[in-house]
Amino acid sequence: MIIDCHGHYTTEPKPLMDFRQKQVAAVKDGSLLPSPSSVKISDDDFRASVEGNQLRIQRERGTTLTLFSPRASGMGHHVGDFKVSEQWSQLSNDCIHRVCNLFPDNFIGVCQLPQSPGVPVETCIPELERCINGLGFVGCNLNPDPSGGNWTAPPLTDRYWYPLYEKLCELKVPAMVHVSLSCNPNFHTTGAHYINADTTAFMQFIQVDLFKDFPDLKLIVPHGGGAAPYHWGRYRGLAQNLNRPPLDEMMRNNVFFDTCVYHQPGIDLLAKLISVENILFASEMLGAVKGDDPTTGKPYDDTRRYVDALSLSGADKQKIFEGNARKVYPRLGPMLDRIAARK
Amino acid sequence: MIIDCHGHYTTEPKPLMDFRQKQVAAVKDGSLLPSPSSVKISDDDFRASVEGNQLRIQRERGTTLTLFSPRASGMGHHVGDFKVSEQWSQLSNDCIHRVCNLFPDNFIGVCQLPQSPGVPVETCIPELERCINGLGFVGCNLNPDPSGGNWTAPPLTDRYWYPLYEKLCELKVPAMVHVSLSCNPNFHTTGAHYINADTTAFMQFIQVDLFKDFPDLKLIVPHGGGAAPYHWGRYRGLAQNLNRPPLDEMMRNNVFFDTCVYHQPGIDLLAKLISVENILFASEMLGAVKGDDPTTGKPYDDTRRYVDALSLSGADKQKIFEGNARKVYPRLGPMLDRIAARK
Repeated sequence: MIIDCHGHYTTEPKPLMDFRQKQVAAVKDGSLLPSPSSVKISDDDFRASVEGNQLRIQRERGTTLTLFSPRASGMGHHVGDFKVSEQWSQLSNDCIHRVCNLFPDNFIGVCQLPQSPGVPVETCIPELERCINGLGFVGCNLNPDPSGGNWTAPPLTDRYWYPLYEKLCELKVPAMVHVSLSCNPNFHTTGAHYINADTTAFMQFIQVDLFKDFPDLKLIVPHGGGAAPYHWGRYRGLAQNLNRPPLDEMMRNNVFFDTCVYHQPGIDLLAKLISVENILFASEMLGAVKGDDPTTGKPYDDTRRYVDALSLSGADKQKIFEGNARKVYPRLGPMLDRIAARK
Repeated sequence: MIIDCHGHYTTEPKPLMDFRQKQVAAVKDGSLLPSPSSVKISDDDFRASVEGNQLRIQRERGTTLTLFSPRASGMGHHVGDFKVSEQWSQLSNDCIHRVCNLFPDNFIGVCQLPQSPGVPVETCIPELERCINGLGFVGCNLNPDPSGGNWTAPPLTDRYWYPLYEKLCELKVPAMVHVSLSCNPNFHTTGAHYINADTTAFMQFIQVDLFKDFPDLKLIVPHGGGAAPYHWGRYRGLAQNLNRPPLDEMMRNNVFFDTCVYHQPGIDLLAKLISVENILFASEMLGAVKGDDPTTGKPYDDTRRYVDALSLSGADKQKIFEGNARKVYPRLGPMLDRIAARK
């Protein structure tokens, strides 16, 4: 079984995008917000949106299922106020739920949180609970910068975030640390803002002992941990200079890197430096980088090939492909067993 | 000959730091700024500041000389207004000049620019000219985020920066893209802000054809190019998606990565992916990461060891250690010849 823990719904049906356009326009000109209940999308529309895309690619690449969340760049937590973010998050999560219901063997939901700059993080908890307890989702995406590139929120180790962490631990779900669209012209969204956020979060975890307060909290740093593996000596040294524990000890039960690194030498480095227990298979397809790599003739984001090519034992690869995901997403196990029983 | 192109004066004499403390305090409470002419530092003080530090380490590691600039985190362009930045930059550059004059075989100057948020970049040109033409410096550090972590300046590809680029080309000096202290609690200065800035700048160079306008402009992205080599597939793919030329073509005569990557696997990856023509030897000692790596028993920042261990030809290593620096810093050649003649 191969679980892709990082897939976004980047092929949304048009009515969903139309709603968002109207919502953003209403925020801009101060007019009445559109009603989410006005959005009508048929099951056929949902089927068509994934059949030639994510589903086809799952089949082609031989991956089993995707942990599926709303488009990351589309979360746009900086747009409008909490109510805007809440309506958009609810609607986005409902669409994920529809896809998961139509293809329960192929997609399992991960939710967008209705974050909003300057609002207490507790406001996200009702939607988190609705998605986990009500819709059967297994995780969430957590935006460390709801301002969209201005970085005005406190660091992830600040007590500001603690109510959310308490709820995540209670619900037994992890969070993937994932920013959204960058409104800052300095930061290209997928080429700089995403990777910078990963690097930033990882360094925050080195600085402060967050996991002493939350020994069961599990956070995924996507895109292979940002710059961290390439600069592993720097981070090991900084941890040492700050009198903090070794990185592998800090990460052990709490911090995980995914395999969204789009070339073999990068994945080789990841697997060489990071404990195999802390790596989760992921591709982010259809995501940041489209098209084929001319040096291989294969899609950049076909990360299964890179993991297959690692000189690791079959047991270790199984951890990356499946075992670690079962551990990091405790709610996944029973769902996978049901899928296996259906097959 | 081994040229370390990235060394900061992190062992400044106390009177220099005392001046800065007074200056920052005066900015805070609005009192009269201290006069730079009040700072008295003897040649012996300057000698003592580097003899047991940078000079000793040069000898121990067998590196020939260091391109030496003021402490990067100390530039603090966000403090006060342009006048504050100008006085501090002049004084800092004068101290570099004093050290270079005392040890002309060991240090060659690279200047801090008197950048200040929201001020036209032209204001930096007089100090740049003073350092290059007057003090014999060979390059400068360019801060893409003078706000200190709020990223309020335009991208490096914006026409805002063009007057400076014109002057750099005219003077035949490169700029190292290097941020300063982060005032944003999200970004650890050396663990996140530095690396993020490198990644950010590199992605900007992918997005916009800056080097069509400035074919002779040479920019160094330090710390091994930030996250770029580890995510080389992502960046190759993004360039492709944006209909931009291949990365090696974009970099060829204009963008260079240094070797401030503090472990062997990182340097191996750098040398595997980046053309040997675009890599400059550097250690940033005494800099971001102090102390010995327990896995090697050697200092993290002893990057010569990592380059020595690369499976490259002697000729290629010579490019990294010396040849490329002569190309990127055109004013260096005659100075190196004079050093050789003295020996």
